[in-house]
Amino acid sequence: MYSFTNDYSEGAHPQILKALMETNLIQHTGYGMDEEHCGRARDLIRKEIGREDAAVHFLVGGTQVNLTVIAAALRPHEAVICASTGHINVHETGAVEATGHKVLTLPSPDGKVTPAMVQEILDAHPDEHMVKPKMVYISNTTEIGTQYTKAELEALSHICRRTGLFLFLDGARLGAALTSSANDLTMADIAALTDVFYIGGTKNGALFGEAVVILNPVLDEDFRYMIKQRGGMLAKGWLLGIQFETLFTDGLFYEMASHATAMADKLRKGLEEKGVSFYSQSVSNQLFPIFSDETIARLSKDFSFNIQARMDESHQAIRLVTSWATKEEAVDAILAALD
Amino acid sequence: MYSFTNDYSEGAHPQILKALMETNLIQHTGYGMDEEHCGRARDLIRKEIGREDAAVHFLVGGTQVNLTVIAAALRPHEAVICASTGHINVHETGAVEATGHKVLTLPSPDGKVTPAMVQEILDAHPDEHMVKPKMVYISNTTEIGTQYTKAELEALSHICRRTGLFLFLDGARLGAALTSSANDLTMADIAALTDVFYIGGTKNGALFGEAVVILNPVLDEDFRYMIKQRGGMLAKGWLLGIQFETLFTDGLFYEMASHATAMADKLRKGLEEKGVSFYSQSVSNQLFPIFSDETIARLSKDFSFNIQARMDESHQAIRLVTSWATKEEAVDAILAALD
Amino acid sequence: MYSFTNDYSEGAHPQILKALMETNLIQHTGYGMDEEHCGRARDLIRKEIGREDAAVHFLVGGTQVNLTVIAAALRPHEAVICASTGHINVHETGAVEATGHKVLTLPSPDGKVTPAMVQEILDAHPDEHMVKPKMVYISNTTEIGTQYTKAELEALSHICRRTGLFLFLDGARLGAALTSSANDLTMADIAALTDVFYIGGTKNGALFGEAVVILNPVLDEDFRYMIKQRGGMLAKGWLLGIQFETLFTDGLFYEMASHATAMADKLRKGLEEKGVSFYSQSVSNQLFPIFSDETIARLSKDFSFNIQARMDESHQAIRLVTSWATKEEAVDAILAALD
Amino acid sequence: MYSFTNDYSEGAHPQILKALMETNLIQHTGYGMDEEHCGRARDLIRKEIGREDAAVHFLVGGTQVNLTVIAAALRPHEAVICASTGHINVHETGAVEATGHKVLTLPSPDGKVTPAMVQEILDAHPDEHMVKPKMVYISNTTEIGTQYTKAELEALSHICRRTGLFLFLDGARLGAALTSSANDLTMADIAALTDVFYIGGTKNGALFGEAVVILNPVLDEDFRYMIKQRGGMLAKGWLLGIQFETLFTDGLFYEMASHATAMADKLRKGLEEKGVSFYSQSVSNQLFPIFSDETIARLSKDFSFNIQARMDESHQAIRLVTSWATKEEAVDAILAALD
Repeated sequence: MYSFTNDYSEGAHPQILKALMETNLIQHTGYGMDEEHCGRARDLIRKEIGREDAAVHFLVGGTQVNLTVIAAALRPHEAVICASTGHINVHETGAVEATGHKVLTLPSPDGKVTPAMVQEILDAHPDEHMVKPKMVYISNTTEIGTQYTKAELEALSHICRRTGLFLFLDGARLGAALTSSANDLTMADIAALTDVFYIGGTKNGALFGEAVVILNPVLDEDFRYMIKQRGGMLAKGWLLGIQFETLFTDGLFYEMASHATAMADKLRKGLEEKGVSFYSQSVSNQLFPIFSDETIARLSKDFSFNIQARMDESHQAIRLVTSWATKEEAVDAILAALD
Repeated sequence: MYSFTNDYSEGAHPQILKALMETNLIQHTGYGMDEEHCGRARDLIRKEIGREDAAVHFLVGGTQVNLTVIAAALRPHEAVICASTGHINVHETGAVEATGHKVLTLPSPDGKVTPAMVQEILDAHPDEHMVKPKMVYISNTTEIGTQYTKAELEALSHICRRTGLFLFLDGARLGAALTSSANDLTMADIAALTDVFYIGGTKNGALFGEAVVILNPVLDEDFRYMIKQRGGMLAKGWLLGIQFETLFTDGLFYEMASHATAMADKLRKGLEEKGVSFYSQSVSNQLFPIFSDETIARLSKDFSFNIQARMDESHQAIRLVTSWATKEEAVDAILAALD
Repeated sequence: MYSFTNDYSEGAHPQILKALMETNLIQHTGYGMDEEHCGRARDLIRKEIGREDAAVHFLVGGTQVNLTVIAAALRPHEAVICASTGHINVHETGAVEATGHKVLTLPSPDGKVTPAMVQEILDAHPDEHMVKPKMVYISNTTEIGTQYTKAELEALSHICRRTGLFLFLDGARLGAALTSSANDLTMADIAALTDVFYIGGTKNGALFGEAVVILNPVLDEDFRYMIKQRGGMLAKGWLLGIQFETLFTDGLFYEMASHATAMADKLRKGLEEKGVSFYSQSVSNQLFPIFSDETIARLSKDFSFNIQARMDESHQAIRLVTSWATKEEAVDAILAALD
Repeated sequence: MYSFTNDYSEGAHPQILKALMETNLIQHTGYGMDEEHCGRARDLIRKEIGREDAAVHFLVGGTQVNLTVIAAALRPHEAVICASTGHINVHETGAVEATGHKVLTLPSPDGKVTPAMVQEILDAHPDEHMVKPKMVYISNTTEIGTQYTKAELEALSHICRRTGLFLFLDGARLGAALTSSANDLTMADIAALTDVFYIGGTKNGALFGEAVVILNPVLDEDFRYMIKQRGGMLAKGWLLGIQFETLFTDGLFYEMASHATAMADKLRKGLEEKGVSFYSQSVSNQLFPIFSDETIARLSKDFSFNIQARMDESHQAIRLVTSWATKEEAVDAILAALD
């Protein structure tokens, strides 16, 4: 049984484990305040994005980041806009609402938020009988494997700045986005166009950990209080620093993501050659091929994966995810299993 | 200038004011604990619905009721289902989310929730990565003037009981619903089919006040704590008791609502005779005729009303609301103004 | 049976009822947006405090005001300081905590907050592992009938401004404070020394209603959204405007409070002459005499009142409250009953 | 420079790292649903406490556990009782209040909650104008290094069960408590006497991780929804399982705690022999010796530690913490430095 269920089925890249081993018995300052690793990882990320002024915070997981950033940014009557498929709207058990804020959505066939959607929501919320939209949340790659072009992100950034909305990019799969063949963005571009974004470690070869990068200083005010209050301040915070230090040394972050992307490209090409159709036009490491129920039953004997959606009476879209650890033989095997 | 903007543009029925005058200098127990008026009003309502076991609480306004009932009923991860047009979804500035709960919606062309919608939402929320639907919120009449038939409410009640959902009916305009020509429900039916509902006073001739009727004792547990915590416990609570006592004496509640309905019927008939088309098939005291921008501009000189929606480049739907206080001459006048 | 239980046992001053009667059938704009009454009442209050720039909002009750002002002012990790006896700490069912904020207290024998207490709390909260104090909440008169002198309020205002804390004065019993023989403050002084305060109507002869006066524009930003979200926006908002308009015409607000104060002074003097001792050095309309259990049992036959605290095995402090409506004969009668 | 600042300054016990290494590239089911490690660790803990029916959940950190357990257990108007020194009251940035709940405290010189304190708080909260106490939170060891005897815990458990309060024991330092020379409790005793407790990994040699043990099934209902909503569900959940599996194999959990305790005992004895006095009567791995400012300055050159409190103009209490990783030479060195 080989799992294509997600990109966090294995532990961490061996270099990360090695770094953890080597520093294990050294005493460190806690809570992310150590200069040795958290400090150095912050510097590496600031250098990567070309922004000495960026604030960088390390948290353990994505839902934690999303709820902390949003709760820190919004006043009680303010709301966050996202695609109907947005992770915060569907897959976080109401974590944002539990901080008191409404999530405003519009249907989005490709998983992206457009300036037109933002404008439509702003127009529909003119006064104090309704919430006040104040932030746009996007994911890159999106929950259905699509990604933003530079032009799209610029247009979104433009409307956000013009109308006073914060722009927050969830980069749980930022590695996959930046290494996709369809990508024309750099991490520096993202830093320039958003108010806050995060770099996903969990889904790109870290044991755990997400690096929150805050570009708009308004959003950084007292942010550590918010991390602590929401339960996201790791006692042994240097464990996060060590991981991001390793990820941003010698390009390991991109190297791992490139492997995931290469495996997805091979898998996509193989599926396309077999005439398989897809639920979404994914260009990244999540693929959503549509199979008959029989095929799915057959594949399930040797491979595990999630069901995305039922398409008709006898067909479903499944989700196949590749990762930094995906074995090329497994890709070959699942393609072969379709013959 | 005559206002058709809403059904709460005037004060209260003279009998209510008279009752307030007559009791003004008598000392009362506060916080809704007086037997003289709150106690008696509770009894009158229990009698009206044929349920001696019902708990009855008096609050000042509708948003207050909605947020208090929902916050009292749900655990943090539980959510409330409503129509996309639902008052709690659109017009309460995120009051429900501010208590920590997600509002789950599906588009509803007629403003109603159906069993199929409930089932679709339940199916889409299978596990702990998503919120858990636990309550259905409906309004009768709805926000666009439609109303539930007995068969519709029975079907909704059935699925709620079968799947363990609470059913909560917002009766801000319950008077209008029960006196509509399309109605086949009684207040006793509503009590039998829901877990909790409220009887709107504000929009039916009280100065203010809504009577929350709790049929499911689970929802009544410590409910007064919730009223107090959410700022809804009126110090001079007997003022609410006096008003509902008056409303449920000699049928004043129905008498006032019947006037609003009669005025709406006359207005609807007049509009239909002129060939006006409508935004929704309202059978109650809110009408949504569609006019050209020029007509709207002309009407605005002598009448005030809200705009509901733009229909096309040159037409908009407006909202005309009649009330217990609407003057028949005003209905005649607005119809005449259309000639 | 005559009640000294509180100062909200009767309805409203006849002039207020008269004003409500006279305007009853006139159509008004809702939600506190009418110029005729809410607008005029705002102007009267601005004039009273000599601050044209003050924002004035009308809400129904005190807990509602407290939770709305505090939730509007604080970010999630910020806390409000008050006396251990503070209304928000004890008697609001955790309303402030329900908005997500910690209430920080220190014991206060006289019910007041001092600069030393504020400094002690600030010193104890140095970093992000603790909440950040950001507001001081005081009541004038306090919950035990004491009141702030001008010098005390100036000192508190000074430390708040120096350390970046908002100062919020709960004036549920502001009328009693300003008419006490011990008072040397004006409403204008209070406006000059606080960031926000409210003028209590409920406890000084209105049917209901509190006027929130915001002096610091930061606190007024989007405040109406907060009122709506927390359920405090009265549909027929002009009812609040009419009441405050009446209260601030021809000094009715002070006239009613003066009566309450005069009755309390007479009662206090009478008790002192009988050698009664007191639980607190109240100079306002709440008195806390200490009686033997037997005396209390005897008084209870003809008078109702609350028990404040047990003092020893055979004595308790009770609370006697006078109001705008207290009859002088009742004061005479309770004094006579002690002989 | 050697750190006695806390018991989480080093990484993890080598056996834990070894287990993480050995399983690193094996694919696992996420979110704590794997049978291999989370399942096995659950079984080991159930066996340790002799309760097959216990629910066991693994979370990353202590604040996260506290806020999740409390938010899951309480309705909005319910409050949690703790000592004034309680971690949730002082050192979690209002995390509990951010979930909407009041923390009720009484001063506690020894850091413990007693039945008398519980009764006093219950007596002070008789009705709906106040919050309703519903849970007691204690820490063992406490924040000042003291610990509960079996008799004390039985008495507390008794009053909680009698009055319908949940009893929640924070075991961030449970290892230290159970290996103290003053201890007469077993983990099975704690399971028998509480409704929920947690076993701290972070402060006893895990990289991170706390095992929440729920004995009262009411508290386990939908608990995984709460973990997810509050951001505490670790994607690679098996990492927690592996750590607790290792901790509860061959007594490693107790072995590490015993070392911390032995080092503390040696340090305490050494300090006592030098006539040092203490801020609290700690019997565990946190010691609070009182030194002159000069001594503290001198010690600071070679050792790091926190300041607990200023005792007088020239003396302060400091906190010295030993851990599973404390070197005996460091204990000798700090004692020598005092000569």
